[in-house]
Amino acid sequence: MGIASTPSPPYVAVIFTSIRMPVDEGYALTATEMLSMADAQPGFLGVESARDSEGLGITVSYWRDMEAVRAWKAVAEHRTAQKLGRERWYRAYRTRVCVVEREYGFSL
Amino acid sequence: MGIASTPSPPYVAVIFTSIRMPVDEGYALTATEMLSMADAQPGFLGVESARDSEGLGITVSYWRDMEAVRAWKAVAEHRTAQKLGRERWYRAYRTRVCVVEREYGFSL
Repeated sequence: MGIASTPSPPYVAVIFTSIRMPVDEGYALTATEMLSMADAQPGFLGVESARDSEGLGITVSYWRDMEAVRAWKAVAEHRTAQKLGRERWYRAYRTRVCVVEREYGFSL
Repeated sequence: MGIASTPSPPYVAVIFTSIRMPVDEGYALTATEMLSMADAQPGFLGVESARDSEGLGITVSYWRDMEAVRAWKAVAEHRTAQKLGRERWYRAYRTRVCVVEREYGFSL
């Protein structure tokens, strides 16, 4: 996974910042499944993710509009994963839903 | 560094996603200096950062408004660091400037 290729703004970014518990308990498998399901959702534009060695992770998913974000949040398997996240995998998390207004970058 | 404590939306998030070159060449020192300078800027609300073992990093800084983002972007030492970033430290990066519309979370 690298830097997502996103269209011209505006579009929506969902910033998910989390602190993991030091256990797997099905996390890796579910994370892979959720990535695959999100990728198949209408309006999904891409995702970027990094987790450091101390357990802090940031995943940013990009979506066409707020309706696409709401639809993904309501998918049954995703709701189950969110519940397991609170019960097993995360010590804390914060989700921020944003409208991207401008972007710029650089590449060698 | 953990999850940032941010006020009720709206406020601004700047998502900086980057791929590092496998060299330091002053990076760690400059990164620490920039963090310290950002922290002293008017309207700075907090920052979250994670970099995985493959060199992909995501840093999200939070700001009171677009004016605070513009002021930080124009600080001379920050402009010098951005230039060194393109010359030495990053293979690629993307900056996305966003308005946070809502947030929610969980903590044990």
